[in-house]
Amino acid sequence: MHKIGKYPFRAEQFMCNFRKQLFTSFLINQMLCAADLHSTERDFGTEQLAKINKTWVLSRFAIEIKDLPLRHSNYNIETWVENAVRFFTNRNFRATDSKGNVFAISKSIWAMLDITTRQAQNLLDIKDGAIKNFILQGDEKIELPMNKTDRVTFEEPMPLLRTIDTYYNDVDFNGHINSCRYIEHVLDLFSMDWHKNHIVKRLDIVFVSEAHCPDQLNFYCSPPKYADTQSHIEDASSLETIDSEGDVEYKIKITKKSPHSNEEIECCRVKLLWRKITL
Amino acid sequence: MHKIGKYPFRAEQFMCNFRKQLFTSFLINQMLCAADLHSTERDFGTEQLAKINKTWVLSRFAIEIKDLPLRHSNYNIETWVENAVRFFTNRNFRATDSKGNVFAISKSIWAMLDITTRQAQNLLDIKDGAIKNFILQGDEKIELPMNKTDRVTFEEPMPLLRTIDTYYNDVDFNGHINSCRYIEHVLDLFSMDWHKNHIVKRLDIVFVSEAHCPDQLNFYCSPPKYADTQSHIEDASSLETIDSEGDVEYKIKITKKSPHSNEEIECCRVKLLWRKITL
Repeated sequence: MHKIGKYPFRAEQFMCNFRKQLFTSFLINQMLCAADLHSTERDFGTEQLAKINKTWVLSRFAIEIKDLPLRHSNYNIETWVENAVRFFTNRNFRATDSKGNVFAISKSIWAMLDITTRQAQNLLDIKDGAIKNFILQGDEKIELPMNKTDRVTFEEPMPLLRTIDTYYNDVDFNGHINSCRYIEHVLDLFSMDWHKNHIVKRLDIVFVSEAHCPDQLNFYCSPPKYADTQSHIEDASSLETIDSEGDVEYKIKITKKSPHSNEEIECCRVKLLWRKITL
Repeated sequence: MHKIGKYPFRAEQFMCNFRKQLFTSFLINQMLCAADLHSTERDFGTEQLAKINKTWVLSRFAIEIKDLPLRHSNYNIETWVENAVRFFTNRNFRATDSKGNVFAISKSIWAMLDITTRQAQNLLDIKDGAIKNFILQGDEKIELPMNKTDRVTFEEPMPLLRTIDTYYNDVDFNGHINSCRYIEHVLDLFSMDWHKNHIVKRLDIVFVSEAHCPDQLNFYCSPPKYADTQSHIEDASSLETIDSEGDVEYKIKITKKSPHSNEEIECCRVKLLWRKITL
């Protein structure tokens, strides 16, 4: 079996925003689908892992977006295992349009947990370390022109921007708040006018703890930082075709509060790099 | 070209609820996708209509659900034009699992509007009445064992249950609040405990006017009605295999209020028939 999996997708109309382009949250959901398909084909999918009482947990995810598919267009998502050490594995993604042009690239870090103890598992112990067989080696390696996933650190305190309740449709097949719902809620912090003038250039998300319905979610946001004060934005390792002029960065911390507790617990951190566009 | 279109879908993991089954809102979105594909193949899609300054508007939709696909399963959605009169066309749907068993059926009514004047168009005048060529005739006809779409009438006043803001991710390719987002918001009025003990047996939605971001949406809900007081639930034309015991009906009215106005305008009406289940 080829080490790289390639899966076809289509931008269905309900997945498209006011620009008639795929929503960022759907693209990320589809990347996670591709990861699920790729790992399942290699006997490492969540259903197969459930039989030995293990599961995958997404720890960090970063995406750089050059363009987004238009409504009705077909595209592919490729994914592969870049590396695996004791407690973490790196999985990368590349999304290409029907002509083979790359429009988004992505890096992610996953841990494997024991379902009962919630303890991280040594990946090299699972199925006799079979995960090593899937790692790209030597000439197979694919260099993605982006920085690695960010830890997303803050200068606290940050002002509270919004508090929301969680509901039935926020909860996914895992029984907890869906990863991409956080991204939807974060992008919803920005007005339609903002979205009309900016698109997401890069998004980093770090998952700290899982929230459950009916937890309340709190969104704290840093003051914006502009491109000219951000050395990493000028970094040559970013997608070269993306102009850095007018870029602006926000960091968002999401905490949860269960109705049975007053304790506020961090559940994830997001760093958003926006590109200003002229219509 | 066959008059009935049949389109394959797959329950991707992010489309699945805590039961690992397809969310109702995704099933309906996919039915609307199937309608889009079917009309586009027949030169009546929204992109083709845009060239003559017309568009489709969904007026009413009703679905009866017997079961929902599990995560990762493949299924098909069939759709066809049942009828077309001057200002309305009826489109039906049938969702079948990989063995061909029907798990959901649906009826809908659509109008065609002039994009500029927003006036309903005489469908039989458009493209020399070509829509008539797609209507099932005689032996081709498929009887769906369900009542027609409901007008959804209320006994007012109804108590206000929730008020929500609308955001970027609520707005679809049409530039207004996505039809299925209303359904998500309505299903989110019910607690996780309710969802654990009930599944949607039938949903009727009537679209009255379009909401836009950042309109506020208000949800008013009728008191519940139980099966034993509801003659239509015992109606032989409903899906026979669904037991009526413990069925309960709610009606929800959704209104919008724009930030620039104090006027509260009705945007849609929903009737939900829930089936009580034992886990």
